[in-house]
Amino acid sequence: MALDSLDPREFIRTKRDGLAHDPAALRAFVAGCAAREIPDYQASAWLMAAFLNGLDASETDALTLAFLHSGRVFDWKALGVAADKHSTGGVGDKISLALAPLVAACGVPVPMVSGRGLGHTGGTLDKLESIPGFQTRLEPAAMTEQMRKLGIVMVGQGPDLAPADGLFYSLRDVTATVEFEPFIVSSIVSKKIAEGARAIVYDVKCGSGAFMKTPEAARALARRLVGTTQALGAAASACITDMSWPIGWAVGNALEVREAWQVLRGQPVPGTRELTLTLAAEMVRLAGAALNLDAARVRVTHVLDEGHAAERFLAMAHAQGGDTRALEHGEPFHAAPKVVELQAPRAGILAGCDCFALGEAVVAMGAGRLAMEDAVDPRVGIVMTRERGDKLAKGDTFAKLHLAASDGAIAARVAGCFTFADQSPATLPADLVLERVEG
Amino acid sequence: MALDSLDPREFIRTKRDGLAHDPAALRAFVAGCAAREIPDYQASAWLMAAFLNGLDASETDALTLAFLHSGRVFDWKALGVAADKHSTGGVGDKISLALAPLVAACGVPVPMVSGRGLGHTGGTLDKLESIPGFQTRLEPAAMTEQMRKLGIVMVGQGPDLAPADGLFYSLRDVTATVEFEPFIVSSIVSKKIAEGARAIVYDVKCGSGAFMKTPEAARALARRLVGTTQALGAAASACITDMSWPIGWAVGNALEVREAWQVLRGQPVPGTRELTLTLAAEMVRLAGAALNLDAARVRVTHVLDEGHAAERFLAMAHAQGGDTRALEHGEPFHAAPKVVELQAPRAGILAGCDCFALGEAVVAMGAGRLAMEDAVDPRVGIVMTRERGDKLAKGDTFAKLHLAASDGAIAARVAGCFTFADQSPATLPADLVLERVEG
Repeated sequence: MALDSLDPREFIRTKRDGLAHDPAALRAFVAGCAAREIPDYQASAWLMAAFLNGLDASETDALTLAFLHSGRVFDWKALGVAADKHSTGGVGDKISLALAPLVAACGVPVPMVSGRGLGHTGGTLDKLESIPGFQTRLEPAAMTEQMRKLGIVMVGQGPDLAPADGLFYSLRDVTATVEFEPFIVSSIVSKKIAEGARAIVYDVKCGSGAFMKTPEAARALARRLVGTTQALGAAASACITDMSWPIGWAVGNALEVREAWQVLRGQPVPGTRELTLTLAAEMVRLAGAALNLDAARVRVTHVLDEGHAAERFLAMAHAQGGDTRALEHGEPFHAAPKVVELQAPRAGILAGCDCFALGEAVVAMGAGRLAMEDAVDPRVGIVMTRERGDKLAKGDTFAKLHLAASDGAIAARVAGCFTFADQSPATLPADLVLERVEG
Repeated sequence: MALDSLDPREFIRTKRDGLAHDPAALRAFVAGCAAREIPDYQASAWLMAAFLNGLDASETDALTLAFLHSGRVFDWKALGVAADKHSTGGVGDKISLALAPLVAACGVPVPMVSGRGLGHTGGTLDKLESIPGFQTRLEPAAMTEQMRKLGIVMVGQGPDLAPADGLFYSLRDVTATVEFEPFIVSSIVSKKIAEGARAIVYDVKCGSGAFMKTPEAARALARRLVGTTQALGAAASACITDMSWPIGWAVGNALEVREAWQVLRGQPVPGTRELTLTLAAEMVRLAGAALNLDAARVRVTHVLDEGHAAERFLAMAHAQGGDTRALEHGEPFHAAPKVVELQAPRAGILAGCDCFALGEAVVAMGAGRLAMEDAVDPRVGIVMTRERGDKLAKGDTFAKLHLAASDGAIAARVAGCFTFADQSPATLPADLVLERVEG
């Protein structure tokens, strides 16, 4: 349907009345909004109608396609089947940092476009930028050049990638229509496909620190992400992973980069190493670089333990201007001025964490942002010194806070996020994966 | 609540989630929109949320009050209790033309603000403007002056009367949120109260030619109109009246003015005279100028039959620049170039009319407009020569079309709006009132 034959009022009325959109009409509406021919007030009336009356799978697919075609679509076919991972956002989620170079080191191109932290979750770009000099803004020509040479880039979203999604996202933000699965799905998938990924694994977080609090909600989102990705012609799978406890040891930008470097060096960081290997195996298999998941797992483990992922990480960091000397030599790397120990207020088992509150506390320390304009302090954060399920005596240290300055209130606030119990919590899988979804 | 303490996103989310608004928040939101501090895209997201999740009576009252206070509020207390009538719109509805001067002639001030025809219904302003020279745009000072002298004005809505309603109405029009009772009620009532009316009768049309097709829908709207008007401190009642047959003889601007003049001259035009008297009695009683409806009825009938209403009409028309000589002398008054008779296609009783289709056909003839910019032809329309329930032989003339030019297709289209039956249709009350609502 051409835009000139679309009546925006008729289109809005269709969804207002709970009817399904014709895919061509949906594409014409999005194109009209992106071309600024349909005004924002019509777009936002439609957003609310869709939020309240729903969009089915085929409408979600059509919306995703419309976002995709509103801008540039990268094509890496000449290099192979490009792969990527998207996480729905968690606390201490530094998985991408080791994962992307690991998969690239397996010969699978990884054109990773990431975001910044907002609200209680961190963002990969903020973490990368704690490496001195690291540039996350690359022109398309530079991206293409680096992809040819190294098979990996880790960058922010350029303005020409799914610009209609950018417009709709900014309207969703001001019209209370953010938390709606079809909008979330179309926003995520359109950008991944636009960056040229054709094999995508979704890490759908579930638990106190995730947007999806229940397995049901996480499963529904995972299915729709996989379904829409497949409908757009790419291979996809999803892992629903635990987010009831911070991933690995560290939360905070430079602290997480150090932890990811430990993983790249082959060290056994609990949770982080295993989840990195699991998601890498998914990507390698989806990209067709291994016959099955078991073979993929063997391959990625070997490549990680041989140090090829670490090499690829350094090559990428250097290509993007990063100075990795402090990181490589284990020297002080954005050391925080003040480190405070958190101690167990009672004897017992370190059992629970309100990850959402923890994420917000770490943001309040300066590690994240409440508004997109806020600056981020790379130094601050928390490092766990004991694990979930450990038995502690009263007064035992279980974590260290890295702070910009002394702050008793924040220490109490962070300590209050953890609970101690007499019984052990249920055991989690080593790679934190609760469930897989293949669509 | 002050605007600076209102978070528009939070406000939209409240309605999105189906919760009720605090009246102060609603007023702050409308004020923010009217002041252009809250952008249209947030207003329109809220319109859709309210449309789909509803507004209760107290929210409707608060919205009405917010519209009212966004502009000028006239005050006629020095002249008495001002009265007005609002019709929800019908086909051949010329009632205001005789009603307003009749009530004014009873000593009750009538500051009537009317609209133009749009869609299948006519508008009082278009009808008045078929009188050569008649001005419907008066400055507030001129309105006040004329109200002091004659106790009546019949004008269009000035830009400073409930401007927030004007803004919301234009957004509703482009976001498919027009047909929603609380919006309809707040738009109507705010303007009536703003023009200074304190005794308002609502003529809620019901049937094929009305927006409300069923008695239930008409009753619900009537109750809400009366309830909101009373909540804002004015006296109100409503009559639900039949709109399954065009009112009186004529549909079309100059033709309807001629019919209203017949009523003003005391002639027994079926439907039109009785409905005019009934609504006039309601207004006179609501304004406190008669002790009860029966006394009011006696009074308005006497005033009409003594010719005082006709005198007041002429005085008003002259004050507003109108040349009424042709009308008064029964001379050709916007005579149409072509008059075509409609004949019964079979023997039978003239029984039914698709009034909506008839209204649309008359608009197509040039009597109304599809868009606000369209010009209106005062000459064209239909005059019934036989009444509902009359028994006709095949080929008997039952109506005359007044046309700008010969047009066989339109004659067939109009003829097709009427149905003939073997049995008489149910009898309607002489004044067409099906039900009264006093709130």
